[in-house]
Amino acid sequence: MPSLYAVIPAGGSGTRLWPLSRAAHPKFLHQLTGTPRSLLQATRDRLVPLSGPDRIFVVTGVAHAAAVARQLPEVPESNILVEPSPRDSCAAIGLAAAIIAERDPTGIMGSFAADHLIPDVEPFVAVVREAMEVAAEGYLTTVGITPTHPETGYGYLRCGASLSIGSAKQVEEFKEKPTLDVARSYLESGRYLWNAGMFVWRVDVFLAELERQQPDLHAGLLKIAAAWHTPSREEVLHREWPSLPRISVDYAVMEGAAAVGRVATVPGTFRWNDVGDFHTVGMTLPADDEGNVVVGDTEAQVLLRDTRDTVVVPRSGRLLATLGVRDLVVVDTPDALLVCARERAQEVKHFVDALKETGDTAYV
Amino acid sequence: MPSLYAVIPAGGSGTRLWPLSRAAHPKFLHQLTGTPRSLLQATRDRLVPLSGPDRIFVVTGVAHAAAVARQLPEVPESNILVEPSPRDSCAAIGLAAAIIAERDPTGIMGSFAADHLIPDVEPFVAVVREAMEVAAEGYLTTVGITPTHPETGYGYLRCGASLSIGSAKQVEEFKEKPTLDVARSYLESGRYLWNAGMFVWRVDVFLAELERQQPDLHAGLLKIAAAWHTPSREEVLHREWPSLPRISVDYAVMEGAAAVGRVATVPGTFRWNDVGDFHTVGMTLPADDEGNVVVGDTEAQVLLRDTRDTVVVPRSGRLLATLGVRDLVVVDTPDALLVCARERAQEVKHFVDALKETGDTAYV
Repeated sequence: MPSLYAVIPAGGSGTRLWPLSRAAHPKFLHQLTGTPRSLLQATRDRLVPLSGPDRIFVVTGVAHAAAVARQLPEVPESNILVEPSPRDSCAAIGLAAAIIAERDPTGIMGSFAADHLIPDVEPFVAVVREAMEVAAEGYLTTVGITPTHPETGYGYLRCGASLSIGSAKQVEEFKEKPTLDVARSYLESGRYLWNAGMFVWRVDVFLAELERQQPDLHAGLLKIAAAWHTPSREEVLHREWPSLPRISVDYAVMEGAAAVGRVATVPGTFRWNDVGDFHTVGMTLPADDEGNVVVGDTEAQVLLRDTRDTVVVPRSGRLLATLGVRDLVVVDTPDALLVCARERAQEVKHFVDALKETGDTAYV
Repeated sequence: MPSLYAVIPAGGSGTRLWPLSRAAHPKFLHQLTGTPRSLLQATRDRLVPLSGPDRIFVVTGVAHAAAVARQLPEVPESNILVEPSPRDSCAAIGLAAAIIAERDPTGIMGSFAADHLIPDVEPFVAVVREAMEVAAEGYLTTVGITPTHPETGYGYLRCGASLSIGSAKQVEEFKEKPTLDVARSYLESGRYLWNAGMFVWRVDVFLAELERQQPDLHAGLLKIAAAWHTPSREEVLHREWPSLPRISVDYAVMEGAAAVGRVATVPGTFRWNDVGDFHTVGMTLPADDEGNVVVGDTEAQVLLRDTRDTVVVPRSGRLLATLGVRDLVVVDTPDALLVCARERAQEVKHFVDALKETGDTAYV
């Protein structure tokens, strides 16, 4: 089995993680891993066993290119692909696929979000290896997560027949975020997995499917990729990129491919979290005996007295003390502080809206 | 009626107001008044109508002399009396009395703590004026506060017969902080006032009573006062001061004077608070419609969303946002942050003890 071309699309801002995550410093750049590594760095770390250090690619925007380059000094400079403007996930992932295909037309590529949390590396690596075997057979392969509860915040995959490759199954359909009742029925049926947005495929298979479903996007990306390692890269990129359709890879390629039987999934049972808000971060990271989770900076001075089930994010270098509280989120950054009921963590994004409205964009 | 010599003993640290109040920057220097004025400044402001600007005296320690001088630029330099070392309240107040007596042997002096909160100035001034009339008759006069609830955190005054001067009464006895049952019985009897540590007397009367009960302390203070405006002040101060007894003015003078019928009180009904902890601060300052109190910095950027009965102390210049919380205290300082249940506010002092134990004295 050849090694993986591991692609990390690094975009998005994460307003539900305000005030830690900002437009200028989105969540993937932050230490939300329970270690001093950022989500982006941890994503890279768990892919290196599959790809080696030189086959990691990152696709990111102009605003974050420098930060990405500094957080990942081991990633070759030419593997940091900077989009001139955001064109959603299909253009980002497709650009990487097309550039990899220039070098290795049947190479196996995987795409993994920069801002997900996967605490246990070994089971992750094992599942991706299995997905690579399935991808080698010509399937667009997803790593689906075996659901643990009827989550309404994720999309789902409806699985069909087992393939004859390991635990892989056909994917019959991609499902949008369900209502709670629907999510419960998914869980009971045993046929559904969470769509964690992790894809593994041969680049030729993906590009063929992209050409079939999104011929304009395919043509544009191929022109850009052909020019990538030439003096005309800049010119071609700035001519072609702005007209590429803004569309997600799920919607542009995966749903249509599933409809014609070309999508497979390998179920993963490792802990996985999309780091949607501080409450879910607290559910994924290890807690102390009182259920408290200190996120990130293990050197921070934190004094928790009679405190339970509280998520603390010390990111200002200041002493952080709590007394007699429970079920809180406390996020301490150099210029803004949040104290929030854990059950209301999703609503933090409203502060971002309010601050935009009042013109306080320094905090956004 | 001559004007008052208003003495402000400015000492103490206020560990129950950590992390705002620190050993190096105790509570009287902080904006805990609901205005940009510090407690010390507000104390000075409400005394000026009684004393005029030039008869304000402050007795403070070496650690705070510079801060006091800068916070009160209107107080004459020679009225800022700096103790070489802390010798408790009787030495501090007695020093001021002896120095004032050098200038005006029968002058009327009042002593008022630097760190109490009295939101309404006019009724305070009226009561002190009445106390000055009683003091002119030769009584050591206290301003007692009519109790509103059976508080166990204050000392009490047991009142006896009415004097023939305004609403003044004899004080029969000083009582230590009572148990709750005892406090309830005090309240029911209608004979007790809170001892707010506000004293008004003729300096000759006070010094005579000091001489009777504490002859060594009296002799030492008189030597220092005699040398105060001479070239030998420094020498006499450093010879006499260290051997002065450490004793409170209540214990050294007032209790014994009450026993021989020389103490009177004028009951005050104005709002008064000893600023013991952030919960009581929140009870004294005006709250918004949701019961929230933002203490001090009216310019601070504070976003309270679905937040109730919470005391917020923004003192770092940072944005402070809360969501879905109630009955909290949030104190935000440049190097330390506290999030505390309001009902546990008294226990904040334990952080100070813990930090001393671990040697983190920068935060103390």
